[in-house]
Amino acid sequence: MNILFIMYDQLRFDYLGCAGHPHLETPNFDRVAARGVRFTNAYVQSPICGASRMSFYTGRYVSSHGAAWNAFPLRVGELTLGDHLREAGMACWLIGKTHMKADAKGMARLGLAPDSVIGARQAECGFDTWVRDDGLWGEGPDGFYDEKRSPYNEYLKSKGYAADNPWSENANAGIDDDGNMASGWIFMNADKPANIREEDSETPWLTTRTIEFIAQAEGPWCAHVSYIKPHWPYIVPAPYHDMYGPNHVPAARRDPVEREDPHPVYGAYMDNRIAAAFQREEVRQKVIPAYMGLIRQCDDQLGRLLDHLEETGRMQDTMIVLTSDHGDYLGDHWLGEKDMFHDPSVKIPMIVYDPRPGADATRGTVCDALVESIDLAATFVEAAGGKVPDHIIEGRSLMPWIRGEVPEDWRRYVISEYDYSQTPQAVKLGLRPRDCRLFMVFDGRWKLVHAEGGFRPMLFDLWTDPDEFHDLAKGADHQAEIDRLYACLAGWGRRMSQRVTKSDAEILAGRGRSGRKGILPFLVDGSEVPEELTSRYRGPARQDFTAERRDE
Amino acid sequence: MNILFIMYDQLRFDYLGCAGHPHLETPNFDRVAARGVRFTNAYVQSPICGASRMSFYTGRYVSSHGAAWNAFPLRVGELTLGDHLREAGMACWLIGKTHMKADAKGMARLGLAPDSVIGARQAECGFDTWVRDDGLWGEGPDGFYDEKRSPYNEYLKSKGYAADNPWSENANAGIDDDGNMASGWIFMNADKPANIREEDSETPWLTTRTIEFIAQAEGPWCAHVSYIKPHWPYIVPAPYHDMYGPNHVPAARRDPVEREDPHPVYGAYMDNRIAAAFQREEVRQKVIPAYMGLIRQCDDQLGRLLDHLEETGRMQDTMIVLTSDHGDYLGDHWLGEKDMFHDPSVKIPMIVYDPRPGADATRGTVCDALVESIDLAATFVEAAGGKVPDHIIEGRSLMPWIRGEVPEDWRRYVISEYDYSQTPQAVKLGLRPRDCRLFMVFDGRWKLVHAEGGFRPMLFDLWTDPDEFHDLAKGADHQAEIDRLYACLAGWGRRMSQRVTKSDAEILAGRGRSGRKGILPFLVDGSEVPEELTSRYRGPARQDFTAERRDE
Repeated sequence: MNILFIMYDQLRFDYLGCAGHPHLETPNFDRVAARGVRFTNAYVQSPICGASRMSFYTGRYVSSHGAAWNAFPLRVGELTLGDHLREAGMACWLIGKTHMKADAKGMARLGLAPDSVIGARQAECGFDTWVRDDGLWGEGPDGFYDEKRSPYNEYLKSKGYAADNPWSENANAGIDDDGNMASGWIFMNADKPANIREEDSETPWLTTRTIEFIAQAEGPWCAHVSYIKPHWPYIVPAPYHDMYGPNHVPAARRDPVEREDPHPVYGAYMDNRIAAAFQREEVRQKVIPAYMGLIRQCDDQLGRLLDHLEETGRMQDTMIVLTSDHGDYLGDHWLGEKDMFHDPSVKIPMIVYDPRPGADATRGTVCDALVESIDLAATFVEAAGGKVPDHIIEGRSLMPWIRGEVPEDWRRYVISEYDYSQTPQAVKLGLRPRDCRLFMVFDGRWKLVHAEGGFRPMLFDLWTDPDEFHDLAKGADHQAEIDRLYACLAGWGRRMSQRVTKSDAEILAGRGRSGRKGILPFLVDGSEVPEELTSRYRGPARQDFTAERRDE
Repeated sequence: MNILFIMYDQLRFDYLGCAGHPHLETPNFDRVAARGVRFTNAYVQSPICGASRMSFYTGRYVSSHGAAWNAFPLRVGELTLGDHLREAGMACWLIGKTHMKADAKGMARLGLAPDSVIGARQAECGFDTWVRDDGLWGEGPDGFYDEKRSPYNEYLKSKGYAADNPWSENANAGIDDDGNMASGWIFMNADKPANIREEDSETPWLTTRTIEFIAQAEGPWCAHVSYIKPHWPYIVPAPYHDMYGPNHVPAARRDPVEREDPHPVYGAYMDNRIAAAFQREEVRQKVIPAYMGLIRQCDDQLGRLLDHLEETGRMQDTMIVLTSDHGDYLGDHWLGEKDMFHDPSVKIPMIVYDPRPGADATRGTVCDALVESIDLAATFVEAAGGKVPDHIIEGRSLMPWIRGEVPEDWRRYVISEYDYSQTPQAVKLGLRPRDCRLFMVFDGRWKLVHAEGGFRPMLFDLWTDPDEFHDLAKGADHQAEIDRLYACLAGWGRRMSQRVTKSDAEILAGRGRSGRKGILPFLVDGSEVPEELTSRYRGPARQDFTAERRDE
């Protein structure tokens, strides 16, 4: 079997037809959902690209792998999906974005050349690279945000796009009435068509690369197809730019009560520039239709990919996973972007299609189990026929759910984390880096957010307040729930996350072996164990050095 | 400056003259204490050789480095004292024992040859090896406990010791009345003189190797001089074998109340073979005088080393640290060995002599601050002139205390951990490996022990019960203290231990930089930032692909 592990960047869980969006039709997402399981309570380990992705790729919590924010390097030697799948006999390829930052210092310390196979995998979080393009080719006075070469810009140039940075000037900009570049960075331009042929824009480009990969690949393989869209800059080529308009924009889910005595960290985020922009209705009305157009384009390209799989017979032997690295507030809760733990940010779409007969019982169903993004790594290892190394991968395989089984010992809460130490909010709050850390515990009903740095927690009851407007930790009525969730967080904090060199099986096999290797620190007179174990400690002394001493 | 980082294996905190032992004289330990600071509340991160040492050598808690028990490999790439000191321009050498197990699988995965410099350091927890000898050359039906070559056995053979394993047959055995080997593994032989010339026994041998090292070393260097003794087998050559006798053996610190409804894990340890042996008074009367003799020999050899340093002028430029990896119950609390968290096991001697004038104010003093073994790594980095990388090293430098300062934000509790997953106690309790983990929190008065696996905690009040006989968690009267210490443990559990690729300084320097690299996801109309930041997103469009589309 093969695995198509498809990730969309910043795709909200509820911006899909099958998830009930009132205006956005996504027939191809729905087509996969109709053949697979849609997980309706799937959460990311961190609501930010880099940290979230490192959790997907390692199967480990952010505090376990340590790459806590964008461009925080993943430490050298940290095991990834690629390591685990190759051990199970499955190749593991990257097509698109990872947001991986190599641990260059660690690699140099271990003498790993970046251009060696081992070094290249270390630098690409374990993947072999079909194409790596993180999709953010922004450029400012200090240079490019992403210093690597841009395969996408190279492609555009080969297609006759004359700009220095056609990603910026064509794919992510329109043209204004005066013939000037209308940058997609500027929200007021979001309703313009991107100045690019639709087939050259980012989503079709990566889909074509994926089809090329599949055409030549010999299995078993896992391909991580990782789209930059519908991530900002919010601008999309025709015909997607005007498929949706202000009348398709849902009302912002926000309530004045949220602005009353907000948690200081939430308050700092509500006051930032992104939030201020999304608090303006004209921004939402420009941006959200573009965001929907980008998703619709993703859906069409997914259809193209599914058609290719069907035509080539690959639907029968390819698992397909559709997911996202986090959501997008889009003005809900007075916020833009992601970063905090309301569902629009931390909850993700997750649809798993398994072609094997064992999954027939669940086709077209939804599953509301508490799922974490780290579960996919375990799922893929099991799908590849490997044994999940549960002393390394902290996620749980979703295969039981996909087979229609209900595991008795499934998790009772999900954890997500956020490190905002490098953000303007940290400056505003005057915190040292290690105090800029948030932890979410969500048990399916109650959502607790703990903030380091001496702040009070936040608490939401999603049963009585599904929109998460009422922070119950402001009052004193819910201490019992707060204590209970803190106990969950404490138990999680004591988890065994770094004993990665020794499996449970090795420990069980090692029990009681030291006696058979001559370590016997309990013998009173030697009769305590079979003579076999002490035979080397018996017999005549060969020389008598105590006598020698007496002679001196 | 140089650093002599001297470790004795299994040396109890209270078996030194300067620590108040009623019978054991240790004039040379006392000589260092008189010139330095003796820390009276120093605790190991785990009361077991391997895990404790990996914490000393990494400056990190056991749950952070993951090498949770003896022979659990230290993961490849984990930073060690050697890495940090070399970065500060100080060489870092090993002379003796580390109990390090290399992560052979991880090294192979990264293509690190064990015989390369980088590979050798990875395999020796960062040290360059002057001599590596872990001092346990036991042998049984399954072969040697330690599969490496034994420099000590090679030395003995070169000195005419004819046995196959002279460590076993000479250094750690006497001769009985019939001329037979009287193995040191058997406690009833502990009062016999070891069948070896005293100068060839382990402690003088390693001291000679150390003097040889110092004679040729060019600074600055750190030498980890790591003695196997007074660790078992308990047997010592003349004249140390009969310096102490039963009249020098303190009464066992144990109380029948400890056996009443003991904590299940403690109960399992009280019932093991080592404990059963040490519960017999004749064992204590044989073993403890040998243990004292071994310490007395260590002290004499320390004197020899100090004399050498004085003669060569090295006392003026060498920091000396005397410590241990854990203690030894010796029958206290109905236990033998270590493993649990009573002070005889988890508390260690720690004496620091700093030759520099800045330490003059504290010479000959004691310090009762809560100290952890991981503090030494930080202390050494500071002593070497480096900046402590506090995103990697979790210990705190002791230099303020040594200078006579009182840091305002010193820790309020110490943590120790124990993983007994591979022991007979785990089998007896029927636990899966990850439930075999203990955590100690000690705040200077209250000591809480948390046990995974659904057990109740243990609680001791060392102010009212300095002998730790009364487990207050058996009753219901101390829930407030239990809750308070659990909150400490929870805070520790959330510590930032794996963000090892990004320092606080790098984070502070990185704040607010993305805008200058063209990442501007908050522009409503472009007026929000200086035009400099958006200049690349302005100007005339070079080509009009939207027009091309309209033409089609």
